[in-house]
Amino acid sequence: MRLSRFFLPTLKETPSEAQIASHRLMLRAGMIRQSASGIYTWLPLGWKVLQKIEQIVREEQDAAGAQELLMPTIQSADIWRESGRYDAYGKEMLRIVDRHDREMLFGPTNEELITQIFRDNVKSYRELPKILYHIQWKFRDEVRPRFGVMRGREFLMKDSYSFDIDFDGAKRSYEAMFNAYLRTFKRMGLTAIPMVADSGAIGGNLTHEFHVLAETGESGVFYDVAYEELAAKDAVDLEALSKLYAVTDEKHDPNSPECPPADRLKVARGIEVGHIFYFGTKYSKAMGAVVAGPDGNPVHVEMGSYGIGVSRLVGAIIEAYHDDRGIKWPEAVAPFKVGLINLKAGDGACDRVCEDMYRALSEQGVEVLYDDRDDRAGVKFADMDLIGLPWQLVAGPKGVAAGLVELKNRHTGEKQELSVEAALAQLTA
Amino acid sequence: MRLSRFFLPTLKETPSEAQIASHRLMLRAGMIRQSASGIYTWLPLGWKVLQKIEQIVREEQDAAGAQELLMPTIQSADIWRESGRYDAYGKEMLRIVDRHDREMLFGPTNEELITQIFRDNVKSYRELPKILYHIQWKFRDEVRPRFGVMRGREFLMKDSYSFDIDFDGAKRSYEAMFNAYLRTFKRMGLTAIPMVADSGAIGGNLTHEFHVLAETGESGVFYDVAYEELAAKDAVDLEALSKLYAVTDEKHDPNSPECPPADRLKVARGIEVGHIFYFGTKYSKAMGAVVAGPDGNPVHVEMGSYGIGVSRLVGAIIEAYHDDRGIKWPEAVAPFKVGLINLKAGDGACDRVCEDMYRALSEQGVEVLYDDRDDRAGVKFADMDLIGLPWQLVAGPKGVAAGLVELKNRHTGEKQELSVEAALAQLTA
Repeated sequence: MRLSRFFLPTLKETPSEAQIASHRLMLRAGMIRQSASGIYTWLPLGWKVLQKIEQIVREEQDAAGAQELLMPTIQSADIWRESGRYDAYGKEMLRIVDRHDREMLFGPTNEELITQIFRDNVKSYRELPKILYHIQWKFRDEVRPRFGVMRGREFLMKDSYSFDIDFDGAKRSYEAMFNAYLRTFKRMGLTAIPMVADSGAIGGNLTHEFHVLAETGESGVFYDVAYEELAAKDAVDLEALSKLYAVTDEKHDPNSPECPPADRLKVARGIEVGHIFYFGTKYSKAMGAVVAGPDGNPVHVEMGSYGIGVSRLVGAIIEAYHDDRGIKWPEAVAPFKVGLINLKAGDGACDRVCEDMYRALSEQGVEVLYDDRDDRAGVKFADMDLIGLPWQLVAGPKGVAAGLVELKNRHTGEKQELSVEAALAQLTA
Repeated sequence: MRLSRFFLPTLKETPSEAQIASHRLMLRAGMIRQSASGIYTWLPLGWKVLQKIEQIVREEQDAAGAQELLMPTIQSADIWRESGRYDAYGKEMLRIVDRHDREMLFGPTNEELITQIFRDNVKSYRELPKILYHIQWKFRDEVRPRFGVMRGREFLMKDSYSFDIDFDGAKRSYEAMFNAYLRTFKRMGLTAIPMVADSGAIGGNLTHEFHVLAETGESGVFYDVAYEELAAKDAVDLEALSKLYAVTDEKHDPNSPECPPADRLKVARGIEVGHIFYFGTKYSKAMGAVVAGPDGNPVHVEMGSYGIGVSRLVGAIIEAYHDDRGIKWPEAVAPFKVGLINLKAGDGACDRVCEDMYRALSEQGVEVLYDDRDDRAGVKFADMDLIGLPWQLVAGPKGVAAGLVELKNRHTGEKQELSVEAALAQLTA
């Protein structure tokens, strides 16, 4: 993509309404614009990142055996009355009346709708287990939306729902999702600490929140160092994990016998990006979701739900990866891998080298944003640091005359002077 | 994907509420389920088709130079007051009041929002032309939703908006979209006839509806035979095209001097799947979207909007491609390319051959739905015809013993007895 054509309205000034780094940087880097309180438009740069994150989530869900469908955003109030949540949910639910005076709502979550779909279409235990998911926009009418996409009102969420014939099956589904979550966050370059969440009566240890570690995280987290080691694996033993200490600051108790000694206790900041939850027959009983069991008798299915805040992850990744100059995208979610800077657009030799490199990289499937604008070098460097592509490839008249370009790593700041061939080889390796 | 695990609730009975073929077949083939009046859940099979159609639309928009972003579903009433459409839009607009008593709405279209984004972020004619688009769920509160996804309330639409400094630029943008539409529909195997639509005062010939030809189409269409030839091209001369006769039955007048003679007049049924529209400065004036022109003076930008009914296309394609037994997907949008039928699941030789073919095709990137269920051959053939994959690959004990499998083309009905190698070669060619 040529920057001269790309719709990338970067800002030099820091917008006053943005209190945290990710919100500030997403506005400045031209990733989002607020359309109404807590409601955002994703501009092309932000949309590219959001799609990459969505695709990683999708691939790991599919790999774990979950099947994708798409439920609508608007739901009927009736099914929420069946579950008893319509009145209970409170003002966060965006309630709507249609032209025929039917009560509707913009779904804040989908337990009711998926239970309805399941009960209408699945009849036998032989069709189990099933894990169904979708990635869809949700709405929660936050009283005070803030922090950009971190606490917006309209947000993109991946929610999965598991259906099993018994507790053992439900536990296997839970573990499959748990491990899919570890892989998902790791692929995005994140350290995500799963912590036993408050589950109420149902669920026991089968409810975890996943917190991404970031210095600017919203909550304090306390955890056993062994957690990092376990969470770095692709699959973990839930039993082993559940014995380790990991809690948010609200629940931290240094006098608890479970709290590890100081040399094993890590204190950090975290951002919640996922929540998984086993809730047994709560919805299947309320809504009559039964299947014929092996003996022919009806059985209420055992269910769990599993959420990832997809749009929130964009903010969380920026909180984990940025510096004073801008964002530093992990490669897996970067909107482009390379930013190609032509230091003297209009100069025949510079243009030729840049066009050649642009073509060569594009042909190899490397995503490049080519800054071909007729602008000062300082502006170009600042914009490229701000939007945070992992690699910057810089061509100026002096280097080009000597057959050299500069390759800069945005994460380490390391710069190399290389021949064009060597630079391309490194970027396409 | 193994059918024994796939969430594919097919129906033997024809649902009574479905009046047209696509609605009937989408329900029977387990592609959709109604969640509320005119609001559907896309089950895995339907969702796969919807994504393929969406991706073709996206690729052709990108190829035409349009840039993708994503606007939210919920909009503020304020911007619709600026354009004057809030009161004018009527009951089809789903109006919402949030917890702070602010008036909101579920966007039925996005002229206002994109104009707001444009005016806040683009300042100079040098940044033009721009074509911005998104593919997002819309809501129109139809008084009587019907025909499944063809006239639902929540529907997926691609809408593009062009911004130019003058009429000539706007016309070039219009032509780029016009030709992108021809390519888009052709890639899906559709014959789409563009017709000059009623434009009111503004726009002149720069407004077209695209109608997909299908025997069961909703409107009668009358057009000059030369249209088919022109529409089969990748790019057409709009001037030439606009001289040809093509109208819906409401506007057909056999006595019009423009109506061609009977031997050149084609009569068919059509389904509207796209609408493109030049509207000049209507929104840029109402909402103050100006850029600095070449002389530094402010200029109201010239705009157009361009819609494709993405979810509606699923229904339109089925209307164009089906028979009494089910759907017949064009390959480009088929949920899987091949249906692999194991006629005797549990038989060692059949299982072995099927597993080998399943693996070989999957490894080559061919999407296969493998019917590994322990069920009667009749059920398997009926389900496979119903869901309409382009190819059926059938292995039974007798054939397998002789080293043969059967390959059936769902479109032509043609069957071939082939060696496993020859069948695989044909499917991976």
